[in-house]
Amino acid sequence: MTPQTPSQAGAAVKAADRAHVFHSWSAQELIDPLAVAGAEGSYFWDYDGNRYLDFTSGLVFANIGYQHPKVVAAIQEQAGKLATFAPAFALEARSEAARLVAERTPGDLDKIFFTNGGAEAVENAVRMARLHTGRHKVLSAYRSYHGATSTAINVTGDPRRWPSDNGSAGVVHFWAPFLYRSPFHAETEEQECQRALQHLEDTIAFEGPATIAAIILETVPGTAGIMVPPPGYLAGVREICDRYGIVFVLDEVMAGFGRTGTWFAAEHFDVVPDLMTFAKGVNSGYVPLGGVAISGAIAETFARRPYPGGLTYSGHPLACAAAVATIGVMAEEGVVEHAAHIGATVLGPGLHELAGRHPSVGEVRGLGAFWAVELVRDRETREPLVPYNAAGDANAPMAAFAAAAKKHGLWPFVNMNRTHVVPPCTISEAEAKEGLAALDEALSVADEHTV
Amino acid sequence: MTPQTPSQAGAAVKAADRAHVFHSWSAQELIDPLAVAGAEGSYFWDYDGNRYLDFTSGLVFANIGYQHPKVVAAIQEQAGKLATFAPAFALEARSEAARLVAERTPGDLDKIFFTNGGAEAVENAVRMARLHTGRHKVLSAYRSYHGATSTAINVTGDPRRWPSDNGSAGVVHFWAPFLYRSPFHAETEEQECQRALQHLEDTIAFEGPATIAAIILETVPGTAGIMVPPPGYLAGVREICDRYGIVFVLDEVMAGFGRTGTWFAAEHFDVVPDLMTFAKGVNSGYVPLGGVAISGAIAETFARRPYPGGLTYSGHPLACAAAVATIGVMAEEGVVEHAAHIGATVLGPGLHELAGRHPSVGEVRGLGAFWAVELVRDRETREPLVPYNAAGDANAPMAAFAAAAKKHGLWPFVNMNRTHVVPPCTISEAEAKEGLAALDEALSVADEHTV
Repeated sequence: MTPQTPSQAGAAVKAADRAHVFHSWSAQELIDPLAVAGAEGSYFWDYDGNRYLDFTSGLVFANIGYQHPKVVAAIQEQAGKLATFAPAFALEARSEAARLVAERTPGDLDKIFFTNGGAEAVENAVRMARLHTGRHKVLSAYRSYHGATSTAINVTGDPRRWPSDNGSAGVVHFWAPFLYRSPFHAETEEQECQRALQHLEDTIAFEGPATIAAIILETVPGTAGIMVPPPGYLAGVREICDRYGIVFVLDEVMAGFGRTGTWFAAEHFDVVPDLMTFAKGVNSGYVPLGGVAISGAIAETFARRPYPGGLTYSGHPLACAAAVATIGVMAEEGVVEHAAHIGATVLGPGLHELAGRHPSVGEVRGLGAFWAVELVRDRETREPLVPYNAAGDANAPMAAFAAAAKKHGLWPFVNMNRTHVVPPCTISEAEAKEGLAALDEALSVADEHTV
Repeated sequence: MTPQTPSQAGAAVKAADRAHVFHSWSAQELIDPLAVAGAEGSYFWDYDGNRYLDFTSGLVFANIGYQHPKVVAAIQEQAGKLATFAPAFALEARSEAARLVAERTPGDLDKIFFTNGGAEAVENAVRMARLHTGRHKVLSAYRSYHGATSTAINVTGDPRRWPSDNGSAGVVHFWAPFLYRSPFHAETEEQECQRALQHLEDTIAFEGPATIAAIILETVPGTAGIMVPPPGYLAGVREICDRYGIVFVLDEVMAGFGRTGTWFAAEHFDVVPDLMTFAKGVNSGYVPLGGVAISGAIAETFARRPYPGGLTYSGHPLACAAAVATIGVMAEEGVVEHAAHIGATVLGPGLHELAGRHPSVGEVRGLGAFWAVELVRDRETREPLVPYNAAGDANAPMAAFAAAAKKHGLWPFVNMNRTHVVPPCTISEAEAKEGLAALDEALSVADEHTV
């Protein structure tokens, strides 16, 4: 197999993929994965010379973009030095990654338990909360995504939970604030916040406060729709948790490490959880890594009593070396500040400008490099452009929108009736404007499906 | 922080570890992790110049040993080319890794779903089995370890399950064959096999065959004690699964990729499961990677219906490139054959010779580079050297054994009353003999605790 042209090489990659790779979240014979030849910064390209501006950051992980030379060099150096080693030892890269993460997490979240990704981080956060409190139930939001292992998928609120909604018990879903589609018939952010807290209080009262180990929330829910919580909501949840002895878990797997224009999204709301999960941006996904940042009180629970959880690759040296380099790059290059700036000056204003011209845009919301555009059939009724969890023909308008974006050189993030604008946090002003121009074209296609 | 000497550098690594790294399976203030400076082949060393022969392969993952230059080079090359990319695309390293794994898995296990490690592989295998059968229960063995996420820890049989034994339902544990401590009062392997199959049949009859989605077994149970199943047992389980429409899952996370002297341990027993989980040896743990190999029939279930599971780093290019290189090295250098040879000619005979001289050795069992030495207080009664799940003072004899091994330059694998001899599959004859000599010294310490 020595393909002669790039296109033939791409075809071979694709053929082997179709023969042997079983893909996530997919009907295996109904997918047509693009063969990707390379990526750099905010762009990637296929074997046929097509180049795309990536408004997805992969799956919202490549916060510093692709192939950052300093992180690549750090991985290469660590590979040459000590690619792998068991978790029970102290290793330079592991110690340094833990120190750098702990330095940035809020409050006294100073102990770091490393995992391979976000799902395992959530699994371990829930385990810690249950053992710390001696209670069993976990409360989480309907509009949420927390991962695909058993507990992580059960605390998840989106439809990906349904087929795995067995084999786990003790999870209760509640409604978090979302003014645009208010579960509480609220008309202002203040009202939404107050009613959402009342709803949570009521749910806790009826579930039994002494049965509840943890409340887990994405600080800013990600794939579920980037609903920035109203001022006071997370502080209110913190107060409720304190009152009932409930562990407050913030999931920053997607929102953390610069995505919202701060190191962690919790900073926007001046709230400190008891446990914080992270992954993705910690090393921009260059090597699989996630983790849980643990408060002093919870760490103390496991000071002299064994913590009953673990994994072979906890604190994997290659992954940790990539984290050390990524955090270094983010600090040196002001990536976090850049994400805040590009959001405030280009992405936010640009998306609002598009909303003014495109009847398919119901709402634009977000911050930093983390934006959702809610597409609707009807701005008045706010009817989504496609029904909740639509597939096949019912999803055709969103498929047409995505195809149009790709035709204009933009790879869009699409979930249900939304497109998310989640490029690398390092995206330049010119690239952001290029992406907004392509979005303008694609939104014209979405407009055709409005009433 | 510019430490002046290697020892000072080690102390700094250790201090940052103690300040910020939360360790797997540990009481955080009762551990004293060794700071490791480097590793190569079968050895690693600390910052004070102490060098250890590694009879653990990390956590039984470094099947090709540490820092194999070809795999290091492949990681460095892939890092420079495309370190990371999202799972929904076709990528050269991912396609090639899937092809090479599928080429080696038995039967028609030709579709590969990649995960970050073994626990997630088990999570997904169970999900596939439940959705494929429309049934819920999973049967697994008491003497087993399958990982630490919710479903994985619940199918696990060892005491690490207990503190997490909530939040999951539908798991039933049964007894697999283990002649040395026969749950069936058997006196021969043939009897053990027949009675174990009868026990499984009876358990299925009383649980209700139509409620059972899967039976999951480690082909050769690893951490639980390397109990090589008697001839006919796994074939018998296969036949039972076929009869009742139960999915047969073999977990080869530890036993796979050369560990037993074959690519997969299933080859020894001429049995083909419906799903096979792997991790560790697939790339010797150089980059976190695991997966599930899927039969044609189960893949077909998800051909036109979406598979409801996934993860951000499924088929991570860096991990897949390491797998491609590792499998290449294993094939070129005859690593699998070497593991079989070293087991048959050095490790097996050497351990049996030690058993003849040390009263603390109750049994030696294993194959390839995968051996258990069962330590006992009394060879007649077979009373374990320490009680099941012993900690603290009760575990002192095993702690003394381990300390003695380390004093003689050998890092031993210790679990309960056993030491496992699980060095890199690439271990040389001279290294193996060096390790056996150190074990000889350490067993003399264990002997002091016999009756």
